[in-house]
Amino acid sequence: MHEMDHASWIRDRFESYGRSHGFLFTPDQEIQARIFRVRAGMGREGIEALLVTQKMDLFYLTGTCQDALLFLPLEGEPLVLVKRELERAKVESPLPMIRDLPSLRRLPACIREHSGKVPETMGLEMDILPIKDYFRYTSLFPEARFVDASEMIRRVRALKSPFEIGLMQKAGEIGKEVYHRAKTFLKEGMTEIEFGGLLESAAKSLGHEGLLRVRSYNYEAYTWHVLSGVTGGIVSQSDSPMGGLGLSPAFPVGASAKAMRAHEPILVDFGICYHGYQADETRMFSIGAMPKKFTEAYKACKEIHDAVLAEARPEADCEQIFMNTLKLAEKLGYKDSYLGPPGLQTRFIAHGIGLELNEYPFLARGQSYPLEEGMTFAVEPKIVFPGEGSVGLENTVVVTRNGCEILTPLEQDIFEV
Amino acid sequence: MHEMDHASWIRDRFESYGRSHGFLFTPDQEIQARIFRVRAGMGREGIEALLVTQKMDLFYLTGTCQDALLFLPLEGEPLVLVKRELERAKVESPLPMIRDLPSLRRLPACIREHSGKVPETMGLEMDILPIKDYFRYTSLFPEARFVDASEMIRRVRALKSPFEIGLMQKAGEIGKEVYHRAKTFLKEGMTEIEFGGLLESAAKSLGHEGLLRVRSYNYEAYTWHVLSGVTGGIVSQSDSPMGGLGLSPAFPVGASAKAMRAHEPILVDFGICYHGYQADETRMFSIGAMPKKFTEAYKACKEIHDAVLAEARPEADCEQIFMNTLKLAEKLGYKDSYLGPPGLQTRFIAHGIGLELNEYPFLARGQSYPLEEGMTFAVEPKIVFPGEGSVGLENTVVVTRNGCEILTPLEQDIFEV
Repeated sequence: MHEMDHASWIRDRFESYGRSHGFLFTPDQEIQARIFRVRAGMGREGIEALLVTQKMDLFYLTGTCQDALLFLPLEGEPLVLVKRELERAKVESPLPMIRDLPSLRRLPACIREHSGKVPETMGLEMDILPIKDYFRYTSLFPEARFVDASEMIRRVRALKSPFEIGLMQKAGEIGKEVYHRAKTFLKEGMTEIEFGGLLESAAKSLGHEGLLRVRSYNYEAYTWHVLSGVTGGIVSQSDSPMGGLGLSPAFPVGASAKAMRAHEPILVDFGICYHGYQADETRMFSIGAMPKKFTEAYKACKEIHDAVLAEARPEADCEQIFMNTLKLAEKLGYKDSYLGPPGLQTRFIAHGIGLELNEYPFLARGQSYPLEEGMTFAVEPKIVFPGEGSVGLENTVVVTRNGCEILTPLEQDIFEV
Repeated sequence: MHEMDHASWIRDRFESYGRSHGFLFTPDQEIQARIFRVRAGMGREGIEALLVTQKMDLFYLTGTCQDALLFLPLEGEPLVLVKRELERAKVESPLPMIRDLPSLRRLPACIREHSGKVPETMGLEMDILPIKDYFRYTSLFPEARFVDASEMIRRVRALKSPFEIGLMQKAGEIGKEVYHRAKTFLKEGMTEIEFGGLLESAAKSLGHEGLLRVRSYNYEAYTWHVLSGVTGGIVSQSDSPMGGLGLSPAFPVGASAKAMRAHEPILVDFGICYHGYQADETRMFSIGAMPKKFTEAYKACKEIHDAVLAEARPEADCEQIFMNTLKLAEKLGYKDSYLGPPGLQTRFIAHGIGLELNEYPFLARGQSYPLEEGMTFAVEPKIVFPGEGSVGLENTVVVTRNGCEILTPLEQDIFEV
């Protein structure tokens, strides 16, 4: 057989091959609208050009997450410089200027050639870009001033388009099917991690990408938070009301080797990623009925969840919604167990979600700003009893013109098998 | 029922509860030996104290990966400062000084109280620590000089102890069982991602932690590289001879929604993580026999693999071993397909492995340094035919006094079902 050239195969066949295997490519007008909004932010902040490297920012603004860098000037054509793999980036991104970047040393020359000059003020994602990269850029561009553009980019990304909301809806539908199947394979004596593995396997067969993403130096996302009885009462490293036992001190969160028993509260917090967009949800399972203490606490979670959804609308203040849940939890008798044990209670009731699990908005202490139409967040009231277990409910929602809509259309009852 | 206090539960019950669910805690003498070696490096480089925050460096030097920071002075007691969760860190780490750090603002005071002064020269993990953290540290310690300690720490971590090798061996045994089970569930018409999900699920039920780790800003590890026929010939973002199709432009690597067909080469590259330590391996599967072109190429991979193992011993030069494989691949007739298609060929035949997938040593172009006893690496010759498929073989090995030993004791034949 004649040996085929990789570049030709990608140029001629990749797009149709990808589409026939479920690939959606981000439409040009979607990318243009995102760039337009980021440029408005650049203008406000006096940033002449962005150097975008963080994988999800790059994907958001180009449609590809090949190993590449986006040079985005305030005016003129955006330039995508690709380390690997160039031809594939050209198919995945609708942007017209996509070039090879064999070495970062060539970056100043590429930019000069493209723009006629090197901008004086350039934005970097300083919240997450490593120090060594920073030193590299400052030595490549000794005349430039670098500023942190990450907050501005994250604010832009917080407002989702109908295209993005559609992908999150699809993630929510996959989640629904996974939870339905979960009822059929949950058995007494199965370990938490076995159950987690079956959830993951079912989810992947339905289109889940198997990896959740968090914008963080050290925080790792994982898709299988299965906590049963005692393990639900264990707090760990994560900024979460409970972390679980985990599998070892090297992975001290989530599902463990503990066998699940009848009548325990089993908390399943499971995120789905579809075409990069995530939906996060939590439901309670039990094998036989769980004790009244937990069903009552679950009712309180449901009441807090419903109260948040009733308040969520454009202009509502994110901190205020959180503070209101503290009052409600206290009124319901859960002051010392709401969002964790005393001294370890987390300070948020909802986190923004999209390409990453920690996007804006945060409905949290210290986060006083208004909700806006198109924001998406996961609301997750949880109640924790150390030594006993925990309960919770979580749905992902989008803020609409007059309120909000659930993107995770799954029954909200306890899943008793 | 009486409400239990979280701190008391962790203090009184966590250790035995963890052990009864498979937890191994890193022994004190193991941590002491690691700290001793890092301090030797600090002395050589004139670093008075380290601020260790990167999750795996922290785990390596303390035994815990709770959300914490290690202040390691050249002399005197190491100090672990914990954000969350303090009591759990105290159980997980054998170090004696473990304290609460409610806010980073208190760090200078904590260090002054502990050491009597603030060190003049402090080491940071600049290869990966974000810029914003760097600015934070420089403002907290305006008198201090910060230097990059990451290279030194990574050199120390490259030499594994018997304790670490034992954990990697266990990971290798889990991998062996997963590949054996894989033969029973591989079926024609199953998609790559379904097969990947089943592998993952089987691995988790055997103790795999479900997450692989890479020390990188943007590179994500994932455990299910399943490539069949055409997808095996597709290069993507990753520094790998082939990346596969993946599930979408947002996750453009690894298993895809393509159905696997009889007589295709099916490459399964699957990593296992046990108590933080990883073993990486690749085997070929096929449903019925695969064409001779691929079985011949597989034989070449096996020959290259065996040649690397025959050369691997203390003092052997890492770059030289790699260069020798280029000559051997050319001699065998695979100059243009070895390690990727022309222009896209990767420049390494093996990567160090342990807590992370990209540790030292790299048997690669530009990496001229000697192998040492106790180094562990994954050797992975691969041959890629764009438009057709790829083959490969991979094992994880440890360098011994006189040669090397395989930690992934799985048959090296093609797994035909």
